[in-house]
Amino acid sequence: MVDKIKVSLLGSTGMVGQKMVKMLSKHPYIELVKVSASPQKIGKKYKDAVKWIEPEDIPENIADLPIVSTEYEDHKDVDVVLSALPNELAEDVELKLVKQGKIVVSNASPFRMDPDVPLINPEINWEHLELLKYQKLNKNWSGLLVKNPNCTAAILSMPIKPLENLIKVKAIYITTLQAVSGAGYSGLPFMAIEGNVIPWIKGEEDKIPKEINKMLGKLENSKIKHANLEIHPTTTRVPVKVGHMGVINIVTDDNFDEKEVQKALEEFSELPQKKNLPTAPKKPIIVLKDEDRPQPVRDLQYYNGMSVAVGRIRREGNVLRLIALGDNLVRGAAGITILTLELMKELGYL
Amino acid sequence: MVDKIKVSLLGSTGMVGQKMVKMLSKHPYIELVKVSASPQKIGKKYKDAVKWIEPEDIPENIADLPIVSTEYEDHKDVDVVLSALPNELAEDVELKLVKQGKIVVSNASPFRMDPDVPLINPEINWEHLELLKYQKLNKNWSGLLVKNPNCTAAILSMPIKPLENLIKVKAIYITTLQAVSGAGYSGLPFMAIEGNVIPWIKGEEDKIPKEINKMLGKLENSKIKHANLEIHPTTTRVPVKVGHMGVINIVTDDNFDEKEVQKALEEFSELPQKKNLPTAPKKPIIVLKDEDRPQPVRDLQYYNGMSVAVGRIRREGNVLRLIALGDNLVRGAAGITILTLELMKELGYL
Amino acid sequence: MVDKIKVSLLGSTGMVGQKMVKMLSKHPYIELVKVSASPQKIGKKYKDAVKWIEPEDIPENIADLPIVSTEYEDHKDVDVVLSALPNELAEDVELKLVKQGKIVVSNASPFRMDPDVPLINPEINWEHLELLKYQKLNKNWSGLLVKNPNCTAAILSMPIKPLENLIKVKAIYITTLQAVSGAGYSGLPFMAIEGNVIPWIKGEEDKIPKEINKMLGKLENSKIKHANLEIHPTTTRVPVKVGHMGVINIVTDDNFDEKEVQKALEEFSELPQKKNLPTAPKKPIIVLKDEDRPQPVRDLQYYNGMSVAVGRIRREGNVLRLIALGDNLVRGAAGITILTLELMKELGYL
Amino acid sequence: MVDKIKVSLLGSTGMVGQKMVKMLSKHPYIELVKVSASPQKIGKKYKDAVKWIEPEDIPENIADLPIVSTEYEDHKDVDVVLSALPNELAEDVELKLVKQGKIVVSNASPFRMDPDVPLINPEINWEHLELLKYQKLNKNWSGLLVKNPNCTAAILSMPIKPLENLIKVKAIYITTLQAVSGAGYSGLPFMAIEGNVIPWIKGEEDKIPKEINKMLGKLENSKIKHANLEIHPTTTRVPVKVGHMGVINIVTDDNFDEKEVQKALEEFSELPQKKNLPTAPKKPIIVLKDEDRPQPVRDLQYYNGMSVAVGRIRREGNVLRLIALGDNLVRGAAGITILTLELMKELGYL
Repeated sequence: MVDKIKVSLLGSTGMVGQKMVKMLSKHPYIELVKVSASPQKIGKKYKDAVKWIEPEDIPENIADLPIVSTEYEDHKDVDVVLSALPNELAEDVELKLVKQGKIVVSNASPFRMDPDVPLINPEINWEHLELLKYQKLNKNWSGLLVKNPNCTAAILSMPIKPLENLIKVKAIYITTLQAVSGAGYSGLPFMAIEGNVIPWIKGEEDKIPKEINKMLGKLENSKIKHANLEIHPTTTRVPVKVGHMGVINIVTDDNFDEKEVQKALEEFSELPQKKNLPTAPKKPIIVLKDEDRPQPVRDLQYYNGMSVAVGRIRREGNVLRLIALGDNLVRGAAGITILTLELMKELGYL
Repeated sequence: MVDKIKVSLLGSTGMVGQKMVKMLSKHPYIELVKVSASPQKIGKKYKDAVKWIEPEDIPENIADLPIVSTEYEDHKDVDVVLSALPNELAEDVELKLVKQGKIVVSNASPFRMDPDVPLINPEINWEHLELLKYQKLNKNWSGLLVKNPNCTAAILSMPIKPLENLIKVKAIYITTLQAVSGAGYSGLPFMAIEGNVIPWIKGEEDKIPKEINKMLGKLENSKIKHANLEIHPTTTRVPVKVGHMGVINIVTDDNFDEKEVQKALEEFSELPQKKNLPTAPKKPIIVLKDEDRPQPVRDLQYYNGMSVAVGRIRREGNVLRLIALGDNLVRGAAGITILTLELMKELGYL
Repeated sequence: MVDKIKVSLLGSTGMVGQKMVKMLSKHPYIELVKVSASPQKIGKKYKDAVKWIEPEDIPENIADLPIVSTEYEDHKDVDVVLSALPNELAEDVELKLVKQGKIVVSNASPFRMDPDVPLINPEINWEHLELLKYQKLNKNWSGLLVKNPNCTAAILSMPIKPLENLIKVKAIYITTLQAVSGAGYSGLPFMAIEGNVIPWIKGEEDKIPKEINKMLGKLENSKIKHANLEIHPTTTRVPVKVGHMGVINIVTDDNFDEKEVQKALEEFSELPQKKNLPTAPKKPIIVLKDEDRPQPVRDLQYYNGMSVAVGRIRREGNVLRLIALGDNLVRGAAGITILTLELMKELGYL
Repeated sequence: MVDKIKVSLLGSTGMVGQKMVKMLSKHPYIELVKVSASPQKIGKKYKDAVKWIEPEDIPENIADLPIVSTEYEDHKDVDVVLSALPNELAEDVELKLVKQGKIVVSNASPFRMDPDVPLINPEINWEHLELLKYQKLNKNWSGLLVKNPNCTAAILSMPIKPLENLIKVKAIYITTLQAVSGAGYSGLPFMAIEGNVIPWIKGEEDKIPKEINKMLGKLENSKIKHANLEIHPTTTRVPVKVGHMGVINIVTDDNFDEKEVQKALEEFSELPQKKNLPTAPKKPIIVLKDEDRPQPVRDLQYYNGMSVAVGRIRREGNVLRLIALGDNLVRGAAGITILTLELMKELGYL
């Protein structure tokens, strides 16, 4: 292809950064040409700056790239800046680049709840990219900023979306069992979590309802009217490496049928699927029927980790119970950033 | 003490059996004098028949006891038969002994829901022992049968009971994260559960609501009128050795105060406490205030495992969320069997 | 290719069996046409008889195959019978099939030390297949029997072989750290091995020296003269799912150079490589230079698990220390059975 | 008791520090009166400065102590300063205190190999405390410095010592399987070591031979003549929380008998035992006969963690193989520091 999209990557040596490096190395039309990391790594070759943990080798075309800074100068000749920066560093760095004219697509939390910034989980709310039409004007930015949701919100929102037209939700009770990688490679010591459960994840229970309600919101008069679901999350950390699971109880008043729910989930398909975007899973939701699924060691690999597996669908009176599982590094982070960029190209926002 | 209660123990070589052996070895007035196990072990010394896994040595007075059968002959000279039999073996064996006149206190599931059989979690429903006054007549048994609940129901019922008079429960949504020991020592292969979550435990989601509602029931006209709580449990297995955790969301209409809830839990005290029974924890519920507690590696040891730790108490609108954790082998099994026997003695049922 | 080798597989539902099913599903000229398993599974479809644990789906062409017995009738129309039977069942079943004329290539332990039976680790001793020229006569069998070594012996022998001509070995001290899958899917309960080390594996310390010495033996007058290495193995089980590691100390009198050792290992290449056999790794030994490698979570994937990773090569006086790691299910079992069959075809033994 | 030894503790909030706090809280004559930690914690109460991980509560008499600095002023009124400082901080801090006149007993690595500093593993080389008679003069210090060995050297030296007079050692090949706590509470991320083995521990393979040879050395003319054992260690990290294991192969020329070895180990008893010191284990070495022992989950509790468990004793020709296991936090650190202080008192060095 002649016109590849040239991108740079902030936070390229972290776990999500590595996942993006790997996914982009095989991408048909997005080309990673610059990798950025923390100041003390600048100038080193990527292969010397990274503690590579993916099972396959560092892609050859990336291994020898020199680490660059997060300054505009180092990114001026790329079309888009992707960001896998830690939350605490992202606000300043990303804002500066956007003000200087860059298009930034980012996983980090700052600005996620900003009314002018689309918070995109591609199959859920690709329409929200329309905010970009007003963002420059409203913000007085020369560039553009697009956000992806928190990894858990990204996964949990998936099975909720297709039910919108099927049942009227009164309240949702969610318990998550989240993998250690969600805290970063060094986020949790072995001594703290091995053989243990830590029934609390800092900040997470606050983000989940807010981000899901924003993503499920409707565009009205160039603004997003947030949904208003009553969501009660409890988030726990379990000794699992990859894979965030959510036990979801949806309370409704409606009559509904388990089979219909299952069908709605299985047939869920949106613009990314219709346009056959390279990173889009053929089936965003995989419904499993064995009673003891989904399981992190078995059910993370569907469509390279881009699908969410859903099992144990059960109706009990007016309550729908289901269990969702997704790859927090792919579906929850690296993969949706890339898929968002594919959507932006498809919809003409580049 | 002159008048020790002499007991025998069925299923003495399993994990719960070993826990009882250990607890009874230090008991002030219950004396374990016979140990029974599966037919191929009969005649062996206990120390040769058991694969002992408790950290301390086998109690000296038990180590050389010969394994006996489950037949009446082998138990005729004990006051009470305790049973840690596997569920699938318990029905026939226990029934036979009861019909032949033995008093049996058992952890196994058969007969738990029988209207004539008390299902005792001591602090919750010691009054239900009164059923024993009618059991012989109703059943035409010469002995007596008392049951203890499923380990998860035993733990989850603890923080629900003290709230009875504080809030009116409309519905309860529970997700459990249960330890592997709940399935028995060899119940789950390492290959199946290490680094994994299995979001289903056979039979468990059926037992929990039924057993809790029976335990929370009221004695009326020599029968138990079951409570009628709407309980929606989802049970999962996590790679933890000991300790069942429950994330509990209680929906109510009432106004209530988190502080009152906390106080009601902290001050929970019942007959076992008032009578200062040897195995009764001084505080049946330990309220933890750190956000990241309770945790299996830290919060199972209160009063030798007989207390349930409760944390993350939070009110959100009309919903009360809390997290309970208990030792499934002690609070969930061995300990409440022994405490039940202490109660029976205290209340004159021996 | 017109002339595919048709094979059946004994023990097709176990972990090694599943690995073979997967590897054969993509094989250019070996076609799996019959799958056998234990009597109670006969007649069921493979997909219903197996508890499939590989991350990808069951290969389509196998999923609906009916399970057959181990009797000759069920295997008469295949060219070769592959066996992943448990050791305790293998002797009778395999012998019967060989006597009835089948060619059997097997992973199971019986007959491994029989002087008429080649014990093949392809890169180490493909020449030993020559025993097959005399086997029928010596044994009065109408078929042929070929064995593969114990998984640990298969892995440990790899780095020893290329050093044969470089240093004269006086003694070898080996400590292994072996994965739980080596005991089979249900071989070890979580409760027994999680967070633990079990410093003993039944039978293993006996097999390792004998099998390595047979594999390193020389063909002389149509017999194998075993090597005579003094090997002192201690075998331990660690809480790792896949990957057997060996810490190897080789005592010698010679002067040698670490660099030469490294070169000999890196350049190791034998008939399977020269003939470019489909399952042969391009490099049977991967030498790693980072001090903290090889590691099971990172170093099992070279050439689909067919290479052995070797690291921490160090000379200390007259002692060579190195650490070897291999995939016990692939390099230690399924993979070498298939590679052995490829060799047999290449060398005209089919 | 009137004359308690008053001690302060450097590094009191780390894992080894916490273990000492716990052990000292029940000590008959050593009284912990000051706790020190890193500068940002100074002034806080111990209970607020520590992330307490021991299962029991913080001892009451310590919980409210204010954290003090490492400066002399803060320790001038104690008899002895105990140190559980990290290696990288210990050199300057400890040296300064010793020069200002304090008696320091320390676990940290600096000065361990100093010829004037005794490196004490109590049962092995209590005689080496005699160096203290010359230390002040040789060093021109006003205080005294005593060191304890690296945790692995402390454990491995135990079964070697009693064999000194039984067999003449030609070489020792050791592979260790070490627990994660050896790297400190936050020393290894879950993502790095769970389900993995890391076959390298920084610095460890250098320390082990040197420290063991110093400890096994003889006092000659007020100096220690180091032993000269040829020790070849390979150190690995395994996903175990507590307990360092060593697989030890001892090569000799002698005729010896396994039974004699076992007897020598079982009967090992030294001054700490003879004087019945409070922290001394009755039996410093516990010989286990079951083939599958010692195991970290079962064999760390003998005499509160102060004994080393030894199993799998086997003679093979001129090679003695045995496996040793000890609690790296107690036998390897906190416990021997306290026992060393008890010895110093017993021998009149205070």
